[in-house]
Amino acid sequence: MAVSQIEMMEKYVDVFQLGARNMQNFNLLRAIGETRTPVLFKRGMSATIEEMLMASEYIISGGNTRVMLCERGIRTFETATRNTTDINAIPVLKKLTHLPVIIDPSHSTGDSAYVSAVAKAGVAAGADGIIVEVHHDPAHAISDGKQSLTPEAFAKMVKQVKSGGGSGGSSFGSATCHSLTLISQSPRSPSSDWD
Amino acid sequence: MAVSQIEMMEKYVDVFQLGARNMQNFNLLRAIGETRTPVLFKRGMSATIEEMLMASEYIISGGNTRVMLCERGIRTFETATRNTTDINAIPVLKKLTHLPVIIDPSHSTGDSAYVSAVAKAGVAAGADGIIVEVHHDPAHAISDGKQSLTPEAFAKMVKQVKSGGGSGGSSFGSATCHSLTLISQSPRSPSSDWD
Amino acid sequence: MAVSQIEMMEKYVDVFQLGARNMQNFNLLRAIGETRTPVLFKRGMSATIEEMLMASEYIISGGNTRVMLCERGIRTFETATRNTTDINAIPVLKKLTHLPVIIDPSHSTGDSAYVSAVAKAGVAAGADGIIVEVHHDPAHAISDGKQSLTPEAFAKMVKQVKSGGGSGGSSFGSATCHSLTLISQSPRSPSSDWD
Amino acid sequence: MAVSQIEMMEKYVDVFQLGARNMQNFNLLRAIGETRTPVLFKRGMSATIEEMLMASEYIISGGNTRVMLCERGIRTFETATRNTTDINAIPVLKKLTHLPVIIDPSHSTGDSAYVSAVAKAGVAAGADGIIVEVHHDPAHAISDGKQSLTPEAFAKMVKQVKSGGGSGGSSFGSATCHSLTLISQSPRSPSSDWD
Repeated sequence: MAVSQIEMMEKYVDVFQLGARNMQNFNLLRAIGETRTPVLFKRGMSATIEEMLMASEYIISGGNTRVMLCERGIRTFETATRNTTDINAIPVLKKLTHLPVIIDPSHSTGDSAYVSAVAKAGVAAGADGIIVEVHHDPAHAISDGKQSLTPEAFAKMVKQVKSGGGSGGSSFGSATCHSLTLISQSPRSPSSDWD
Repeated sequence: MAVSQIEMMEKYVDVFQLGARNMQNFNLLRAIGETRTPVLFKRGMSATIEEMLMASEYIISGGNTRVMLCERGIRTFETATRNTTDINAIPVLKKLTHLPVIIDPSHSTGDSAYVSAVAKAGVAAGADGIIVEVHHDPAHAISDGKQSLTPEAFAKMVKQVKSGGGSGGSSFGSATCHSLTLISQSPRSPSSDWD
Repeated sequence: MAVSQIEMMEKYVDVFQLGARNMQNFNLLRAIGETRTPVLFKRGMSATIEEMLMASEYIISGGNTRVMLCERGIRTFETATRNTTDINAIPVLKKLTHLPVIIDPSHSTGDSAYVSAVAKAGVAAGADGIIVEVHHDPAHAISDGKQSLTPEAFAKMVKQVKSGGGSGGSSFGSATCHSLTLISQSPRSPSSDWD
Repeated sequence: MAVSQIEMMEKYVDVFQLGARNMQNFNLLRAIGETRTPVLFKRGMSATIEEMLMASEYIISGGNTRVMLCERGIRTFETATRNTTDINAIPVLKKLTHLPVIIDPSHSTGDSAYVSAVAKAGVAAGADGIIVEVHHDPAHAISDGKQSLTPEAFAKMVKQVKSGGGSGGSSFGSATCHSLTLISQSPRSPSSDWD
């Protein structure tokens, strides 16, 4: 995503996704701040929570307060998974801001075998929504196939996440089932590798 | 905990806790392997999941198979919390082994404000139990007061964790409510700082 | 630095500096690859050496082979210095590529007290050049004052680095004194904070 | 190394080596503090410089001030080398303490191809000595063969390190050639893998 694409995109998209590698692209942040389009603001893979919040101010100070903060995993020494989901970031962000907090278990684990478990963990920790990569044929996906769920696995995960919230409103944290945002994302191109 | 203490401890304790800094203390691991006392085996703060499993073999190969693997946070660049809870480790360990997996949100966050959220996340991700520090007067605790829950906060957390499991068995992952182990740990001395 | 600035800059600058946060800005990399202006290519703060080399290929494959690889510190758990100088990266890069390797001890330490020591270490390890921030009045610099040398301290450092090379060609590694590039950089604006 | 071995070892050894995994083994630190045998005190692989200095106080406060601080690499996300040599630690430790500072390029790189370059870097940065693994037949070493120099390569490295100091005393930092301690270490057993 580049500054020059904003004008055209603004007419068609519901939400801008600001990828992890653009979290400190200040020209782009300021340009998005001039719009009123909601933004999924992804944490950089080596950004601290403080840096994440500071960078989001570049958007908000332009008048666009429709920012969703997204934990998508950080880089650590662990190699068993693609990234390390910083689950602590969920309650920390909920405490420090009023902005919605989203978890992206697809990028934060990098492996479809672990996506459901970490999605549920994110909701239990208080996330307001999840974003998950889905592909009808993961083995042949152009990018991110390894971390993509099939539509069937996605449907199963949604059911589990919802039942986790309980029937009597005894939900985990602030994530009540009816308000939980479930975003299914189909990877479109190799560039989504950098989300 | 030292090798020389095992003989005496064995008569009185239900579970040995092998602290994070002893995870690769091979003399100690072998000595514990000679006993039949259950062990709470804590991941070293910079140990990979693979190293954790390799080290646990020193106990198991001695004939003591009563090993519980405990995720207690790893060291990363993030400073907003004392450690980074590697929530991915829960489903990874559940996939790679048959051993029970425990989460320690007290050490993995280092802040009582975040303990409940991460405890719930751990259970949602599939943990078989949680271990939490509780103190009747955290402000005056000799060690780890900052991360200790009061008995009241602990009781509230337990209730939330149980309701998260659902009444009809629609539990998160493999952690059904009735089998979930809730361990309340009172810190005893400054050395528990190194758990 | 943005793609839209390249055309204008190309006429005036001797070297493009591609900052750490732009290391995986592929649009920018491709656009620089279309020019024939030398590029100081800085490693991202959480980029592996392999990722650094892969990203540099976006420039080289466009026909611009005048790429200098720059180690400027990586992000780790250590907080005594702003970044951790990955001195291993110098001999690793020298082994894997034919490109010149530069060290930036100003950003990699973040403290003028340590710049000279690490500059000398970089040359001893085989670096082909160093880039150092200099300011006539560091205490009042707009950015990066803490890590800037005074002109006097810079002159002293240069003398030390040269004498370290020896007079008889008994230089450290491949960095002979006469070919060693000493680049003094004056920070111009707060954005240099992101180099 | 265990507390129970100290009494016997004390009669025969010139220097205790406290391995990285024992850096926070406080029982052992206190026991070594009771002796007057010099100690090569190795930094833990995920220990901060501050933690290293705090831990060394357990020895010094017992009256044994003969402590040499050793940088042997820290654990980071980089996988091109076994560890990341924190070269910044050399000038930082020299500034904060009066204790001798040693560099261990064998463990900090894990690859004999990079040992000489990093040894020279360490000396240039101000280290008072180096410790290097040497084996007459690295390919058949029981442990650490990959990072061991042959005696010939070691001799060549020593010559280079010495010439780097210059003939007229124009040495790098505080490491003058005549006082530089060159320690050649032959790995003895698989346990040296944990140094």
